[in-house]
Amino acid sequence: MDQRVSFVTLAVADVARSRAFYVDALGWSEDVYVEGEVLMIRVADKVVLSLWQREGFESEVGPLAPGGGFAPITLAHNVGTTDEVDAVVAEAVAAGGTLHREPEAREWGGYTGYVLDPDGFAWEIAFNPGEIGQVVLP
Amino acid sequence: MDQRVSFVTLAVADVARSRAFYVDALGWSEDVYVEGEVLMIRVADKVVLSLWQREGFESEVGPLAPGGGFAPITLAHNVGTTDEVDAVVAEAVAAGGTLHREPEAREWGGYTGYVLDPDGFAWEIAFNPGEIGQVVLP
Repeated sequence: MDQRVSFVTLAVADVARSRAFYVDALGWSEDVYVEGEVLMIRVADKVVLSLWQREGFESEVGPLAPGGGFAPITLAHNVGTTDEVDAVVAEAVAAGGTLHREPEAREWGGYTGYVLDPDGFAWEIAFNPGEIGQVVLP
Repeated sequence: MDQRVSFVTLAVADVARSRAFYVDALGWSEDVYVEGEVLMIRVADKVVLSLWQREGFESEVGPLAPGGGFAPITLAHNVGTTDEVDAVVAEAVAAGGTLHREPEAREWGGYTGYVLDPDGFAWEIAFNPGEIGQVVLP
């Protein structure tokens, strides 16, 4: 099993609502959209973000955990400066995301804020001054 | 907000156990390991998989959903043939993963199986004959 992730798939309640956020509001380009089923968006070289209608996800993968609290994952969008963190958080909120944590300095040396997508998935908007934060920048 | 994911972060119960699976058993290379805190592994160009000890995750991101069922996400590892799906599922299980769904043909045209990591995160081992399945291959 080689060291790579090809798809990140999130189960969503309404794929049309996901599309309104990611494609219409944020302006991201879709690769695949099947109404009521799935939306796929390229988010890195050889990596696709797939928003999969919950019913399809559950029938293939299995029953989901009941609600309450956060899913135990975050997706990060890293930028090169703290000012960009503030700007991207504002942009994501303007696009209909929900502000979850105002950007602030973190004890590990970075500066991050969190915005929730329509299903409550947490996007971390991050400046990470460490080496590992540099390798992910465009 | 540009169209990209920089990090995929999973909250884990025991980062040493995650390391035993991903690094020791699967043979993946770590970029960052801080005992009891975090393990970071490059999984695509400019994308890092971060396994973050649950306590640290919750203190920064917020309280997690209680257990039961699956987290509403999967990570996929795509390969070029159905035979490779069978082989990689066997390899992941031999490394200590839990077989969750035997590989089988899916109605969307692919052939996939699911293996759970030590925290129950589902890895989909997938052959996807569609165009979107080709763009993620190495």
